[in-house]
Amino acid sequence: MKTVLLFLAGVLGLAAAPPAPAQTTPYRIETVASGLDHPWSLAFLPDGRLLVTERAGRLRLIEPGTDGRLQLRSEPVAGVPPVLARGQSGLFEVLPDPDFARNRRIVLSYAHGQPQANHLRVASARLEGTRLLDVKPLFTSLPAKAETQHFGGRMAWLPDGTLVFGMGDGNLDRTDAQRLHTHLGKFMRIGADGSVPADNPFTGRSGALPEIWSVGHRNPQGLVVAGGVVYAHEHGARGGDELNRLRPGANYGWPVVTGGIDYTYARVTPFQTLPGMEPPLLQWTPSIAPAGMAWYDGALFPAWRGSLMVAALKERSVRRVPMADPARGPVGAQELLFRELGERIRDVRAGPDGALWLLTDSPQGRVLRVVPATP
Amino acid sequence: MKTVLLFLAGVLGLAAAPPAPAQTTPYRIETVASGLDHPWSLAFLPDGRLLVTERAGRLRLIEPGTDGRLQLRSEPVAGVPPVLARGQSGLFEVLPDPDFARNRRIVLSYAHGQPQANHLRVASARLEGTRLLDVKPLFTSLPAKAETQHFGGRMAWLPDGTLVFGMGDGNLDRTDAQRLHTHLGKFMRIGADGSVPADNPFTGRSGALPEIWSVGHRNPQGLVVAGGVVYAHEHGARGGDELNRLRPGANYGWPVVTGGIDYTYARVTPFQTLPGMEPPLLQWTPSIAPAGMAWYDGALFPAWRGSLMVAALKERSVRRVPMADPARGPVGAQELLFRELGERIRDVRAGPDGALWLLTDSPQGRVLRVVPATP
Repeated sequence: MKTVLLFLAGVLGLAAAPPAPAQTTPYRIETVASGLDHPWSLAFLPDGRLLVTERAGRLRLIEPGTDGRLQLRSEPVAGVPPVLARGQSGLFEVLPDPDFARNRRIVLSYAHGQPQANHLRVASARLEGTRLLDVKPLFTSLPAKAETQHFGGRMAWLPDGTLVFGMGDGNLDRTDAQRLHTHLGKFMRIGADGSVPADNPFTGRSGALPEIWSVGHRNPQGLVVAGGVVYAHEHGARGGDELNRLRPGANYGWPVVTGGIDYTYARVTPFQTLPGMEPPLLQWTPSIAPAGMAWYDGALFPAWRGSLMVAALKERSVRRVPMADPARGPVGAQELLFRELGERIRDVRAGPDGALWLLTDSPQGRVLRVVPATP
Repeated sequence: MKTVLLFLAGVLGLAAAPPAPAQTTPYRIETVASGLDHPWSLAFLPDGRLLVTERAGRLRLIEPGTDGRLQLRSEPVAGVPPVLARGQSGLFEVLPDPDFARNRRIVLSYAHGQPQANHLRVASARLEGTRLLDVKPLFTSLPAKAETQHFGGRMAWLPDGTLVFGMGDGNLDRTDAQRLHTHLGKFMRIGADGSVPADNPFTGRSGALPEIWSVGHRNPQGLVVAGGVVYAHEHGARGGDELNRLRPGANYGWPVVTGGIDYTYARVTPFQTLPGMEPPLLQWTPSIAPAGMAWYDGALFPAWRGSLMVAALKERSVRRVPMADPARGPVGAQELLFRELGERIRDVRAGPDGALWLLTDSPQGRVLRVVPATP
């Protein structure tokens, strides 16, 4: 009974106190760029420039000006493929190729098609100066979906050079997340050329789409590789936001297992755990709405080294999830950061400069840089 | 759509024709014993005697008479522990110890307790002449259940000398079959002395009962080890009877996955398959109500060698499930045997004499012996 009450209190948002703000390294927050329309993803190029996506379909460059200070280039990058931008759909992730310094290629994820028949698409392109050339679609989700919600869209490179990315359940028939004939509610793994790796877990299974890498996700919007381990988080409905360790072929349970309930307060499933399905490393109930994630191991904030940083929309925060060892998962209390901004945080990144970078989710979104306060 | 119609036709019993009776070795059926009250399990002792359980709680001996012919001893075996006999509950399986010739021990499974608070119990005893001595409970299921249905009760020895047995879901809250704090809807594995093997799959998991060996069973009433492989079958509700290959720690899905629907025609679950759950080797829809199983590899019926024999209550048959190799599972068409009896078959056994033995499920149940017809 106690468990039930705690659970209900949790999903209803009555009792679950956020962790107390811990004493942390003093920091200050600089605005690097502003006026961005729902910036979604930030990437650092080895030449010192940055790329940032706007959900409406623009890819923007941030580059050092004549004074050496970073500034947003007013003209968007040319050559971005057409994007379906409506509701939650649009241009999502930008990710430089691991070999960008040599091949100047990036990958983009975005919604493609019409509102009533749309797809998650991943494409590769070459960035020449301020334009994209040689755009090649690598992946188009199947089948077409009729809602412009729950796209997922985050991507990461595995150490073997393959690309992993997540797709949401589409928010129409949530059981699609458990069905192997659709990409909805799955993570996928493909080669940098769009090929399907022969060692994908469902390759060769009759009726299964071979790109599928893991199963049973609701709407994953955080993905990072740390210490060889693939971490992902996903939005629950009312409660049940999850941080997971992804393993090929594993089932993360949605909608058969969840720590949350429906937006209507209806029960989604009788199960919070099931043998054969992967339990989350941790969950957030009430929902914080996790929307991006970084692994921080930089020099500027020694106290934050070895932490996952989780950007949260609803909680308007970044959750710092400390780890003693990335191969072993979270340990200790989470730290709640940047609540003073009062901003929905869409993405968080660890820069090559050792700073922590944030994107605020708003029609007037900003790129923020967090550096140690100089006393 | 075709699939849906076939599925519905199947569960409604409209279309699924049983396999055509194949040409088989001619046989004749002898009655060895009769007048048994719902005989449930048959066992062969190395001294030439047989044990048979009656569900009402009696253990009977069949022994060679002065003329050498087998006959039912009129007095039941003394010393059988008290049994709860109501509805589906009662005395279930009798199984000689692998070392019976030396230690004369047997194990029994039975319902124990009161109708509103009952358990599946497994006990060991020594058979001295016509009485049981030194009765030792080895296992009592937890928690108490309040329905006298879905006990499971079949047992088998693994090659390592441990005992595996199945328990049904109790037919009250079917989700218990997925919850590790209860024995309902699981197979268990224990030592011959009732100890818990250290290598059981959920040993040491917080909140899990350590005897659990596999998960997600509705009501398993067939269990046999052939070629080192553990085969089990279980009753579905309306359709979805299953034959499974059991593996430690695996989840067989009930009630999250099933090929059947509810007795009410309501859908039990949207899933007939789920990643992370074991699909059946085969299923029977409409239900045949499988209630016992043997591995036949005897000399008297060469055409039947290398087959699972499945006793069916509802279909009033034995299904012969041929295998080329017991390690690889069923191949080819099933053969429908003994329909001419018109009897519900509760158990089927392969005798040391090479014959096939049957128990008919009735208040006037019989022990039958199937031998080749002499032309």
